[in-house]
Amino acid sequence: MLFHVRMDVAVPRDLDPAERRALLAAEKARALELQRNGVWRHLWRVVGQYSNVGVFDVDSADELHEVLWNLPLFPYLTIQVTPLTEHPSALSANP
Amino acid sequence: MLFHVRMDVAVPRDLDPAERRALLAAEKARALELQRNGVWRHLWRVVGQYSNVGVFDVDSADELHEVLWNLPLFPYLTIQVTPLTEHPSALSANP
Amino acid sequence: MLFHVRMDVAVPRDLDPAERRALLAAEKARALELQRNGVWRHLWRVVGQYSNVGVFDVDSADELHEVLWNLPLFPYLTIQVTPLTEHPSALSANP
Amino acid sequence: MLFHVRMDVAVPRDLDPAERRALLAAEKARALELQRNGVWRHLWRVVGQYSNVGVFDVDSADELHEVLWNLPLFPYLTIQVTPLTEHPSALSANP
Amino acid sequence: MLFHVRMDVAVPRDLDPAERRALLAAEKARALELQRNGVWRHLWRVVGQYSNVGVFDVDSADELHEVLWNLPLFPYLTIQVTPLTEHPSALSANP
Amino acid sequence: MLFHVRMDVAVPRDLDPAERRALLAAEKARALELQRNGVWRHLWRVVGQYSNVGVFDVDSADELHEVLWNLPLFPYLTIQVTPLTEHPSALSANP
Amino acid sequence: MLFHVRMDVAVPRDLDPAERRALLAAEKARALELQRNGVWRHLWRVVGQYSNVGVFDVDSADELHEVLWNLPLFPYLTIQVTPLTEHPSALSANP
Amino acid sequence: MLFHVRMDVAVPRDLDPAERRALLAAEKARALELQRNGVWRHLWRVVGQYSNVGVFDVDSADELHEVLWNLPLFPYLTIQVTPLTEHPSALSANP
Amino acid sequence: MLFHVRMDVAVPRDLDPAERRALLAAEKARALELQRNGVWRHLWRVVGQYSNVGVFDVDSADELHEVLWNLPLFPYLTIQVTPLTEHPSALSANP
Amino acid sequence: MLFHVRMDVAVPRDLDPAERRALLAAEKARALELQRNGVWRHLWRVVGQYSNVGVFDVDSADELHEVLWNLPLFPYLTIQVTPLTEHPSALSANP
Repeated sequence: MLFHVRMDVAVPRDLDPAERRALLAAEKARALELQRNGVWRHLWRVVGQYSNVGVFDVDSADELHEVLWNLPLFPYLTIQVTPLTEHPSALSANP
Repeated sequence: MLFHVRMDVAVPRDLDPAERRALLAAEKARALELQRNGVWRHLWRVVGQYSNVGVFDVDSADELHEVLWNLPLFPYLTIQVTPLTEHPSALSANP
Repeated sequence: MLFHVRMDVAVPRDLDPAERRALLAAEKARALELQRNGVWRHLWRVVGQYSNVGVFDVDSADELHEVLWNLPLFPYLTIQVTPLTEHPSALSANP
Repeated sequence: MLFHVRMDVAVPRDLDPAERRALLAAEKARALELQRNGVWRHLWRVVGQYSNVGVFDVDSADELHEVLWNLPLFPYLTIQVTPLTEHPSALSANP
Repeated sequence: MLFHVRMDVAVPRDLDPAERRALLAAEKARALELQRNGVWRHLWRVVGQYSNVGVFDVDSADELHEVLWNLPLFPYLTIQVTPLTEHPSALSANP
Repeated sequence: MLFHVRMDVAVPRDLDPAERRALLAAEKARALELQRNGVWRHLWRVVGQYSNVGVFDVDSADELHEVLWNLPLFPYLTIQVTPLTEHPSALSANP
Repeated sequence: MLFHVRMDVAVPRDLDPAERRALLAAEKARALELQRNGVWRHLWRVVGQYSNVGVFDVDSADELHEVLWNLPLFPYLTIQVTPLTEHPSALSANP
Repeated sequence: MLFHVRMDVAVPRDLDPAERRALLAAEKARALELQRNGVWRHLWRVVGQYSNVGVFDVDSADELHEVLWNLPLFPYLTIQVTPLTEHPSALSANP
Repeated sequence: MLFHVRMDVAVPRDLDPAERRALLAAEKARALELQRNGVWRHLWRVVGQYSNVGVFDVDSADELHEVLWNLPLFPYLTIQVTPLTEHPSALSANP
Repeated sequence: MLFHVRMDVAVPRDLDPAERRALLAAEKARALELQRNGVWRHLWRVVGQYSNVGVFDVDSADELHEVLWNLPLFPYLTIQVTPLTEHPSALSANP
């Protein structure tokens, strides 16, 4: 099941630099892991913004929430979730 | 070069039914063609809305405009274009 | 899987009265059917508005789209879908 | 009498950790109590957000205000209240 | 129980003049009746707009919906309902 | 002359507790005084929010500004003022 | 008493040309009359828009409503009214 | 050349009181000077808000920017500039 | 003097095709003329939208209004005007 | 390839003055360099605001992101990117 997710990142300026580095490293490691196991199917950076858009492939909305809520950067993310479905004009629907 | 594109469709109620059918068929044919030649790389339907989100892969913003402007449904579309770039945590950037 | 759905209804004034009656009757019949089979789990009217909010219980986002897209009133609905998950303070999570 | 309530939570980052834990525990205890006595009839988490939507069943708007105003987390909540009524297509109205 | 209600009126230009007159007369009669029986407790015109704000005193949100939904002008009204409660600094709370 | 006024209150968390108590007491005293002398004609709390709506009866917009600007809580209020006039369907206009 | 007023004009395309001419002439005549008797104290066109901003000087909000409601173009105007008062740094307050 | 300017003031709470007084005094002196030399042609306070609206008469947009950018309060102002022109129904255009 | 101008075009569907063609041809001729005489200094199409952004170089805001108001497409344009000035980091300011 | 870029600047008040000066000097140097090498083709200040609008000429959206992300002021900028294309009525398209 696919969900379109936009995340706007706002890490506080006064976060301890070491904590910030650790947080960003943990976020990156988790993002790679989620991509490798097929959950975070697409991930792009929005040009000119500290934001990303992507598509998650999960078994349920509950699983998506678990994944998002536990992202290391979650406390500093503004997240918008949009459920997707196959488009009737998509190649997959017109083999 | 990737662009995120959201389209909200609003075909007028009073469009002649034959014209409407022809228009939608032309749109579908063009969408399939653009997907087959790799320009419309992703296309999804937004759940519960007559809208879609997708990603275009083009050589330039000019090419993207040519493609969008000439979609059969263009006069009835509200389109938002967001340029994308590779995310530093994407798999492609971390081989 | 639960989705929160808000629908704002705007039936055009110039719709043929018989067509309108048929449409509303079909919508009501379908709403009852969906409630009876457990898909449209909750349905409330918003006070003072031709709008409703409710909760759907479906197996997937795709199923939800099928259900919404095929509602008789769909062409006249503005729909907002919000995926839900169990709240950690809900009774169901604290038996 | 039913009211739809959405709450967006924003606990300040600099709240003392012990105070935060106590606050969240008190909020959870109160939420469970309100659910057990039938006031907080439904409670769901919004996927990907520190937010919830729910439905309260109270005797009056005054009672609802008392309940919300006295939630332990109230100072950190943004709350939207929408009065509901029975939908003419709800099962309860079509026995 | 008190509810704050704002109504923005948009009667279509092409409504038959006789129907329009009848509608406005019916609306006025109903507004007076609701004021006389204490339901529509306050009613003011917003300066420079075809809009009004007011306060309704009803036994329940359901009653409020019945009243609003059956206003003759309802199809041409955009209505916002805000539940009210006694303010702790109101005279009534500080006799 | 009547003005509709909505106030959203946001007292800073870090205000000294004694200063806060004094401020709120002064605000309450002033609100009661203004109600007793007929200036603050109506005052209600918005359910679920640290906000109020009310109606002021003043001799001029200048007087209203003097009153609002000098409220003890003014620095922490977001205020929206809407001028009102008698509604042609109000009881007062249809004796 | 001064009120800041912005008006956005939207005369329907299908208005009979003679009616439109008459309406605009009546509006102009009334605007000049209101300026000559000191009520419409300032009147400017917004660059690039069919809109104007201005300042009215009236004895009461009721008088302002009477004036605005009876403008020939009123049915085609979107009007925003903002009450003004003397600024403490204005010349008039610092003679 | 006339420009409509709205300013919303937000002086930080933690500004040193002496600095604040000096800043406000400097702003007032500059506002009076600009009014005396005809640049700040009109200046009004918005009722109930720490905001003002006014009209500037300058030789160019560049001059306006110089004036606004160098206001003592500039760092704490949110400014909206709207270019104005003579209204065809203004007295000045209909001598 | 420079002004940034965005125009969103919405030509009505039911405009007579010959009138539409004439209108668009007149708009194009006027746009070219204004560019040739240096008034419409920059003109770009927004990708994926029937909109343009550009920069006008005029002697006054009055001249800009004359130009915009008399564009053949003016009745079908939504126009936003933003006055510009030289940026202190622009090459022209740092020769 | 052209992109329209608007930047709103919000340098925190509590930034160390020396750091602030260094940051602004670095931003200015980089802006000049980007203009000299033809990337930042146009740069204007918005009148009355700490904001600028401009046009970038880059080989790709990726290049634009690299440029924007590495601006010294980036952490304090809110950036909106709009892709542009040649307007069919531009001089360049009508030689």
